[in-house]
Amino acid sequence: MKPFFEKVAIIGVGLIGGSLGLAMKRQGLAGTVVGVGRGEANLKVALERGAVDAYCLDLEEGVKDADLVVLCTPVATFLALAESLTTVVKPGAIVTDAGSVKESVVSMIEARIQPRARVVGAHPIAGSEDSGAAAAREDLYQGAKCIITPTAATDEDALRKVEALWSAVGSLTVRMDAATHDRIFAAVSHLPHMVAFSLVNTVADMEGGSFVPYSGGGFRDFTRIAGSHPEMWRDICLLNREKIVESMDSFIEHVTHLRDLVAASDGEALTREFERAREVRKKLA
Amino acid sequence: MKPFFEKVAIIGVGLIGGSLGLAMKRQGLAGTVVGVGRGEANLKVALERGAVDAYCLDLEEGVKDADLVVLCTPVATFLALAESLTTVVKPGAIVTDAGSVKESVVSMIEARIQPRARVVGAHPIAGSEDSGAAAAREDLYQGAKCIITPTAATDEDALRKVEALWSAVGSLTVRMDAATHDRIFAAVSHLPHMVAFSLVNTVADMEGGSFVPYSGGGFRDFTRIAGSHPEMWRDICLLNREKIVESMDSFIEHVTHLRDLVAASDGEALTREFERAREVRKKLA
Repeated sequence: MKPFFEKVAIIGVGLIGGSLGLAMKRQGLAGTVVGVGRGEANLKVALERGAVDAYCLDLEEGVKDADLVVLCTPVATFLALAESLTTVVKPGAIVTDAGSVKESVVSMIEARIQPRARVVGAHPIAGSEDSGAAAAREDLYQGAKCIITPTAATDEDALRKVEALWSAVGSLTVRMDAATHDRIFAAVSHLPHMVAFSLVNTVADMEGGSFVPYSGGGFRDFTRIAGSHPEMWRDICLLNREKIVESMDSFIEHVTHLRDLVAASDGEALTREFERAREVRKKLA
Repeated sequence: MKPFFEKVAIIGVGLIGGSLGLAMKRQGLAGTVVGVGRGEANLKVALERGAVDAYCLDLEEGVKDADLVVLCTPVATFLALAESLTTVVKPGAIVTDAGSVKESVVSMIEARIQPRARVVGAHPIAGSEDSGAAAAREDLYQGAKCIITPTAATDEDALRKVEALWSAVGSLTVRMDAATHDRIFAAVSHLPHMVAFSLVNTVADMEGGSFVPYSGGGFRDFTRIAGSHPEMWRDICLLNREKIVESMDSFIEHVTHLRDLVAASDGEALTREFERAREVRKKLA
């Protein structure tokens, strides 16, 4: 099934929203795509690049008559957006999102939107170093996983349409419950960022930062991850607190164990640990 | 001063030794460069690529008459090499190395080589994903730091010649004591590897490894570092144990502090930590 929406409102046309707009238009999935945002310069870029057919600075005007509303702004903005949508979203419309935290976010949106409209949580696993509509690419979702997180309150028809949308733009959709999603991404995405932030600050705190200029490949790779948006990561921490703490606890256990092996000069056990990690890399390659 | 050595023996002509051979020959720093190793296939590649003028599988024959002997094999091999060199190194020759651990290594070599020949510890900060003579490049050291670690027992003339050698191949030489070197590299190189190994194993241990396929950018960057040679890292841990444990302790403190901030939902403090890490990246860029 190839889904079709007469009017689509994409709230936030940066890399994620802009790429979705480009891909939907290329695939003929929408009559009209309207970009909604607060920065006109970026919206103009989105329009020029053909990611949207029109843009709008006013949320109410932008979502009026939209059959599909996609939240593509940072997750921290979702609460205010959902509250604004409560009375203005078209009855029966589908509201979905691209947020990287799901359990707390989806239930918060559902509480404000349903039953007037229908909520489906989603998280396309795509991104890049670049951001903004200028970085949008119609093939961003090609071959990428997109996690869909239905709840007991999810409308079946809306769920199927959102899945069909992400499939049509090239994603491999995976259905799972929001709590499982949040545990997985706490581990594979949020934890690596927490670890990178900690490592960079550890080294920066040594001898007044004088060690930093000696960094070669190893440390530099970490600083790339640690260069991510501070406010965005604060919000992810607040919204996925419990799962992130769990994964950090597990990591602290592992790194403390490795520290003890180094302290004990246990060469055999160290080799085993390093070999185990190397195997994971081979599986991913 | 441009140093000149009639005969140079490079023990181990992989990326590091092979690149040194290419650069020395290009700069006219040696009459003859002999490659010494155990794998004839790699030595042949080094010869064909012009990194050495001749090669030799026998250590004694290879270093005979050499004015300069450069140890470019993994640090774990240095003890056996130094013991073999004890009675065969040319009297008055200079023995230097390219090992990434210095304090324990240099004193061990000095004890076996001096006063017959003269020892100078060095660590060129260069490398790449690739290895072997096939990956050698004559410009590998261009603009790269090279740490030289003299001790109280270091001969001044030998020290100046080794510094001049690394300068002549394009390096920026920095003199520091071996203990300081080892603390710095425990922090900027060894610690990031320990952290990457721990992180990869933490995620691999969750739910029977079923989270791994969901990894995106963050986790993948870590697996790259964690794909390094297990035995090489075991040896670095054994040879720089004390400093690595110190840096891991400092890191564990930092990551535990961050974990507590997440658990406390302390948004302001989290933003500050993330901003601090981001600033370090900006300084490196």
